[in-house]
Amino acid sequence: MTEVYNFNAGPAVLPRSVMLQAQSEFVNYRGSGYGIIEESHRAAPFDEIIEAAEANVRRLMGISDDYDVLFLQGGASLQFAMIPMNIALPGKKIALANTGEWANKALAEMLIQGKEVDVFYDGAADNYSKIDGIANWKFAQDLSYVHICSNNTIFGTSFPVFPDTGEVPLVADMSSDIMSQEIDVNKFALIFAGAQKNIGPSGLTLVIIRKDLIDRCPDKVPTMLKYKTHSKAKSLFNTPPTFAIYMLRLISDWLLEQGGIAAIEKINCEKAALLYDYMDSSDYYRGTADKACRSKMNVCFRLPNEELEKNFIAAAKENGLIGLKGHRKVGGCRASIYNALPLDGVAKLVEFMKNFAAKN
Amino acid sequence: MTEVYNFNAGPAVLPRSVMLQAQSEFVNYRGSGYGIIEESHRAAPFDEIIEAAEANVRRLMGISDDYDVLFLQGGASLQFAMIPMNIALPGKKIALANTGEWANKALAEMLIQGKEVDVFYDGAADNYSKIDGIANWKFAQDLSYVHICSNNTIFGTSFPVFPDTGEVPLVADMSSDIMSQEIDVNKFALIFAGAQKNIGPSGLTLVIIRKDLIDRCPDKVPTMLKYKTHSKAKSLFNTPPTFAIYMLRLISDWLLEQGGIAAIEKINCEKAALLYDYMDSSDYYRGTADKACRSKMNVCFRLPNEELEKNFIAAAKENGLIGLKGHRKVGGCRASIYNALPLDGVAKLVEFMKNFAAKN
Repeated sequence: MTEVYNFNAGPAVLPRSVMLQAQSEFVNYRGSGYGIIEESHRAAPFDEIIEAAEANVRRLMGISDDYDVLFLQGGASLQFAMIPMNIALPGKKIALANTGEWANKALAEMLIQGKEVDVFYDGAADNYSKIDGIANWKFAQDLSYVHICSNNTIFGTSFPVFPDTGEVPLVADMSSDIMSQEIDVNKFALIFAGAQKNIGPSGLTLVIIRKDLIDRCPDKVPTMLKYKTHSKAKSLFNTPPTFAIYMLRLISDWLLEQGGIAAIEKINCEKAALLYDYMDSSDYYRGTADKACRSKMNVCFRLPNEELEKNFIAAAKENGLIGLKGHRKVGGCRASIYNALPLDGVAKLVEFMKNFAAKN
Repeated sequence: MTEVYNFNAGPAVLPRSVMLQAQSEFVNYRGSGYGIIEESHRAAPFDEIIEAAEANVRRLMGISDDYDVLFLQGGASLQFAMIPMNIALPGKKIALANTGEWANKALAEMLIQGKEVDVFYDGAADNYSKIDGIANWKFAQDLSYVHICSNNTIFGTSFPVFPDTGEVPLVADMSSDIMSQEIDVNKFALIFAGAQKNIGPSGLTLVIIRKDLIDRCPDKVPTMLKYKTHSKAKSLFNTPPTFAIYMLRLISDWLLEQGGIAAIEKINCEKAALLYDYMDSSDYYRGTADKACRSKMNVCFRLPNEELEKNFIAAAKENGLIGLKGHRKVGGCRASIYNALPLDGVAKLVEFMKNFAAKN
């Protein structure tokens, strides 16, 4: 059969070698006679996995002992609630850059909790097509924290640089670009990501939190929603999503084999350039994000009309290029080209786009 | 190699045929060219899975349209917090039967939230070895709700009958015995279960909630923690744990093929009888739970001393019988014999127990 390339926005393509390894040991994990999905989270084989997963994440991202690395559940959506519960300080505002859907959802949860929020940047007027002036953003130093979303899956934008918040903790939702590019973790106080785009299957949330923030949490916060609980228990307070953590471990092994994040970033830049360069050379396809802040993960584009977009998505699927439909809130097309989507897949997509434009 | 029987308390053994099917289609789900773990939660193949999973659960348990069936994350531990947040009524007490660890943890979360709780039954004095007098329990009709834990994994006890709470909503944590025996769902207002014992892998929580309770929730509760959110969105408000839901679907298919819950309950009774009857005939092994409320899922027992218990667990493992260590809080031995643990496995365990007792 034709090779299939999966451009889904998440859950998304996982590295082929990882998928094959997980399959090969699915019913008999390393000679145990049963699957790792059936193993106790308190048994030695899983201890080895969760420890290796944490060590890999630390090594890949250069995370110091000043931070905890936590494996949680509930996705970014639960983090939107947990973060203000845990680290908002009484009487101190939160500052938030509204760069799209996910920042908006984070804002909604802050307001539900009665927090005072300064939305110091709002991209709504530009339909979230750009993020500009970041280098000039200034922050009062008495804020609780500053919240940003580093990459906006729906609108295809990302932060080309990160803001300087001085002593104020910077919190970043990196669900859709974590481990896709080198970053200096020390510039952030809290990084969180649903795993289901770059680093694993759905049902697992990675949280990297600077230890000094953990004690900010009021006692009245439910136990499962306190970072403190999971920090103390090394993510084993209750039964974690063991199979998803196993997959993250394999995927982080694979990333290390690729040469780490610097190496995958180079490939990600090549993939994005291939696609954007073609789009820029074409009158048929129109990228929706401002060039200065285009996402290297989610490439959003339009065709001359919606009818053609529908035909494009269907014809692409026929050609083994799946998941190219834009998010239901914005329409159009979107190619999500996460770490595990190979350069060949992007080349095949560009070739298909050329042919489609020529014929339609 | 020797066949291995997995007596882990959870994550636990899954049906062999399900494991083999999941393995066979792991990298190529039904001809798609990629794995279901890589599929979008908004795409048709996953729609089919989550709809079939819900239909199977409804059919197996006889759940009417008066109830929602929700697929959530965070395990029973998060439910301990969500339930009082959502359904406790202002000024009305919660009543709780403290039958062990998990009821205690549920109580702790009610108290963190400042709820008034009537612990009308407390098994602590008996070290949670029994649950008695259930038929005589009486409840004031102005309670918010009554909370019970139907089966206590750590202490090996379960409710031989369920209390009659009249018009007061009965909430039951069925994490370790859901779908192991026929129950009348209509007697309960809310049933919840971490999937990782009888119905799936870890990282998935099943919640069955009577629809009239959903609107009790105050607005100030975070969006992800409102049952209303997940009810409206049919468990697709945010990215669900797709692979775990896929596994639950296969496991519920398997249960239906076995003849449904009545059929599996019959086998579960045989398995439990085989093990308890042998224990009762032996002077060497001593069951820790009162006979009147012994769990059919978690069989807890002691040997003459701790040294022998340690040797027993190690020798059993050598013989392909794994996961027999008791919970770290109580020690001793525990055989968890969930739906997917075959009768042959229990027979082999009893044979091993006889041999071990004869030699030691």
